[in-house]
Amino acid sequence: VKNLESTRLAVVGTGLIGASVGLAAKRAGAARVAGFDPDAAALALAVERRAIDTPAESLETAVAEAELVVVAAPVGAIVTLLSGALAANGGCTATDVGSTKARICSTLASESRFVGGHPLAGSETRGAGGARADLFDGSAWFLTPTPETDPDRYRFVRDVVGLLGAEAVAIDPEAHDLAVGLTSHLPHAVANVLANQVGAAGDHGLRVPASLRDMTRIAGANPELWAEIFLDNARNLGDALADHRRRIDELEELLRRGDADALSAWIEDAARNRPR
Amino acid sequence: VKNLESTRLAVVGTGLIGASVGLAAKRAGAARVAGFDPDAAALALAVERRAIDTPAESLETAVAEAELVVVAAPVGAIVTLLSGALAANGGCTATDVGSTKARICSTLASESRFVGGHPLAGSETRGAGGARADLFDGSAWFLTPTPETDPDRYRFVRDVVGLLGAEAVAIDPEAHDLAVGLTSHLPHAVANVLANQVGAAGDHGLRVPASLRDMTRIAGANPELWAEIFLDNARNLGDALADHRRRIDELEELLRRGDADALSAWIEDAARNRPR
Repeated sequence: VKNLESTRLAVVGTGLIGASVGLAAKRAGAARVAGFDPDAAALALAVERRAIDTPAESLETAVAEAELVVVAAPVGAIVTLLSGALAANGGCTATDVGSTKARICSTLASESRFVGGHPLAGSETRGAGGARADLFDGSAWFLTPTPETDPDRYRFVRDVVGLLGAEAVAIDPEAHDLAVGLTSHLPHAVANVLANQVGAAGDHGLRVPASLRDMTRIAGANPELWAEIFLDNARNLGDALADHRRRIDELEELLRRGDADALSAWIEDAARNRPR
Repeated sequence: VKNLESTRLAVVGTGLIGASVGLAAKRAGAARVAGFDPDAAALALAVERRAIDTPAESLETAVAEAELVVVAAPVGAIVTLLSGALAANGGCTATDVGSTKARICSTLASESRFVGGHPLAGSETRGAGGARADLFDGSAWFLTPTPETDPDRYRFVRDVVGLLGAEAVAIDPEAHDLAVGLTSHLPHAVANVLANQVGAAGDHGLRVPASLRDMTRIAGANPELWAEIFLDNARNLGDALADHRRRIDELEELLRRGDADALSAWIEDAARNRPR
């Protein structure tokens, strides 16, 4: 598709991401976006923000006329909602925005109309109140087609994602979860650890250095959502945490040895390895 | 002092911090700032940046006329330079800008003309090229007077620090090192660990999420300087790393148990504990 003027969209789950999908779709020309959220207040807020034009009282009603259903729910609820949408509308294509992909894609492996997705965008805010039409502009949006995925439907989702402002990046679901375990879930986990560690020390009488504030900015975000993400990717995150612990051990050993040259070389490694 | 128009300053070590002290002092009215650096190129750059008016060929010459000597050197070199300055000029007051304070202050415990200092300001750049007159504006500048410190000299240093734009904060040297071990040295150490961890994983094919970039911004900064800081505060940093490791263990146990409620509560703790 070249624009969204004649594309019928339904958004299931109208929080920050779902409502931003609605706003970005409207910006790209979508005439009407249908929406459903089990939380009536969340749905009403998305309508108020003009992210959703046609609120529905059920999943089935929301997706009945849709060509593309976007499920923007917590990862623990996604498979049920996707299955419900695909069953309620035999012609639609469905995608999701979950932060983990392996379990969701393997559960729906036989479903040719499903294309897994994960926009690498977000905010410390939550809910449709923080939704923005430009939330996805210039950011990566992972898509995880499998051998069973209908290639035409994959291209359709890829085009829509581009029209929402993002850059579609195809990746294997398992490779996706391994990578985000390291680059997203580990940093989130460590930010939480640091926040709890500094908090437990009580008032240290110092102002917070910018470095510490940067390193704990994402701490404490959306507890229920993130608990589900951590558990859904527990194997990869667990491996990353075990590696983190081994590296902390190594640093402690360098400190015990009092070897300034080795410590300096270790920091130089970090200078080379720093993600840019 | 109310301004620096008639205060004779000498800066020893004319890198980022030392040259910024010179620039901030000039901004506050200082007529002439003397300077010395064992690295002739570093001294020349500070003169070129107009941070230093009177470059000297030795520590002794630089401090000969000074009322206040500011030693802005790596922590491993500070005690020697302070001792040299205090011996060369029997009337001057001396302070330093080292990131650790306990060892320096206990080594110089009998010296009533010394006031330990640590400006909580910096940059990822280094050298006089990145120096700024406003580097200290609005930031905390720790001062660590001891029972032996001459109260008049402490007030003098406190006033100068204020005129450089910073807010002087008096703190016990041991309490300072405990606090910065947790709020500064631990975050630096963990940022280095994360950078090395992500680097070791090789190219994961993903763009770097903003959260990971925030958490590794300080990784790899000034290897020699930071190796000395880590070693000088090895006991406090070691304790903080051991606590960090215990908390990583706890998180791994929560993941193994698969307890979403406990995990969510743990993230909620981090939301409350997040430094602001």
